[in-house]
Amino acid sequence: MEIIKTVRDMQNFSESLRLRGKRIAFVPTMGYFHNGHLELMKEGKKRSDCLVTSIYVNPTQFGPGEDLDKYPRDFERDERLSRDVGVDVIFYPPNSQMYPENYQTYVNVENVTDNLCGLTRPVHFRGVATVCAKLFNIVKPHVTIFGRKDFQQLVVIKRMVTDLNMDIEVVGMPTVRESDGLAMSSRNAYLKEDERESALSLSRSLRLAGSLYDQGQCDAGVIIKKVKDFIGKHPGTRIDYVKICDVETMKDVERLERKSVLALAVWVGAPRLIDNYVFGENK
Amino acid sequence: MEIIKTVRDMQNFSESLRLRGKRIAFVPTMGYFHNGHLELMKEGKKRSDCLVTSIYVNPTQFGPGEDLDKYPRDFERDERLSRDVGVDVIFYPPNSQMYPENYQTYVNVENVTDNLCGLTRPVHFRGVATVCAKLFNIVKPHVTIFGRKDFQQLVVIKRMVTDLNMDIEVVGMPTVRESDGLAMSSRNAYLKEDERESALSLSRSLRLAGSLYDQGQCDAGVIIKKVKDFIGKHPGTRIDYVKICDVETMKDVERLERKSVLALAVWVGAPRLIDNYVFGENK
Repeated sequence: MEIIKTVRDMQNFSESLRLRGKRIAFVPTMGYFHNGHLELMKEGKKRSDCLVTSIYVNPTQFGPGEDLDKYPRDFERDERLSRDVGVDVIFYPPNSQMYPENYQTYVNVENVTDNLCGLTRPVHFRGVATVCAKLFNIVKPHVTIFGRKDFQQLVVIKRMVTDLNMDIEVVGMPTVRESDGLAMSSRNAYLKEDERESALSLSRSLRLAGSLYDQGQCDAGVIIKKVKDFIGKHPGTRIDYVKICDVETMKDVERLERKSVLALAVWVGAPRLIDNYVFGENK
Repeated sequence: MEIIKTVRDMQNFSESLRLRGKRIAFVPTMGYFHNGHLELMKEGKKRSDCLVTSIYVNPTQFGPGEDLDKYPRDFERDERLSRDVGVDVIFYPPNSQMYPENYQTYVNVENVTDNLCGLTRPVHFRGVATVCAKLFNIVKPHVTIFGRKDFQQLVVIKRMVTDLNMDIEVVGMPTVRESDGLAMSSRNAYLKEDERESALSLSRSLRLAGSLYDQGQCDAGVIIKKVKDFIGKHPGTRIDYVKICDVETMKDVERLERKSVLALAVWVGAPRLIDNYVFGENK
């Protein structure tokens, strides 16, 4: 396994692989790996001759007052886990490689970022789209793998790749959960013991919503209210949003007629956790 | 020479060339070729195994009330000239290929677009950067050639390529002029006979500025005033801007100490023409 730290070296590495007809899979991450990341890597491994992952806590996707400085990091552990899962290259750039002086170019994906996390984290998706555009140009993958836990992020990346004609296949993988249902997240590391219990209300509320839908409930407002009431009963929770949206446009829907996703963001103590459920899919 | 009209076909063509180790040069244009375009193509021919040009009048770089509908077009003539100069592929997409329904992603290059044409044509460079990002992903060139007549455009493209880590060499070529000094432009076709004479005031005013500088004048304000007075004396001219800027940041300078460019935009009758002069360079 190689660790590459400069843009130039990474591009040269990838270009020479491409010239030899090799297929490159890419899993961009902010590190502090959990099984969710490792599942993306295993999928990338299956789909390529060379699996590249990046570890980069991207400052442009954090707003003022968000947890950039506190975001958990453990490169040595990530390195070990990467090796175990068969990663070929870790791209691990410093900020000076990614955002040198005079940096001033940003990618904006417009409509699909108007709702959900785009509302409450106004610069977030601009940062995500920009860093992914950069990483795609640096790593030059044929296929890139994202988790569906960050549902809106996956929609944004697919939209950017389509709109900017990036010749890359984008694969979305199911959310990986702890045995009790909590969606895996690097931010779970922030949870105190009692908060860990309250955090279960997220995935349980999604199951509740799924069961209402299965019983024929198609009114988004009714489902949202029950989900909010359910989460609100758990100590330490503070809801950022609970919404039901069209899976492509990310616009709110009133009735569950087209394919829809329930997406939520909730602070549980300090960390803000997200989770989602696509109606009609098995979990 | 091939004419390719779909994104998919162009990407497949380029990818198969790259796999065979061939070098691709790319000259993006809006068509209606003049010698300026042809010089870019000749340079591209020298620098590559395969020369691709695109002909696409990009709607997103025209503001409301600008000349999108009237922009001159003559594909048959462009095709003939391309063949003569040795173009291998014309990429000639319809709008439905470039901006299909639900299109919503834009590339913004920030600081260098704050001045000059970025001030008076607010959406222009967002459109230019976006369509070039798309075309680069479609044509997959190793090198791309732009004219220096659109000086700020060249700065924007270089900035975008650097910031987004596009692995492409950007080459800027000198402005090509008519024998009387008028910078070649597709928009010159709009000039009526008497306007053609007034239009010469642009290049002549640049020579005036160069000569003032050569005589030791370093005060940008003084030079700008003389240029404006000179152009203003010609009937049918209306100045959009005359500015002297740092060649990298595009910020106004007061004194000509670092490398600076005099850039101007002037309506001469209907068409708005641009030209520029980098101080200290031979013309």
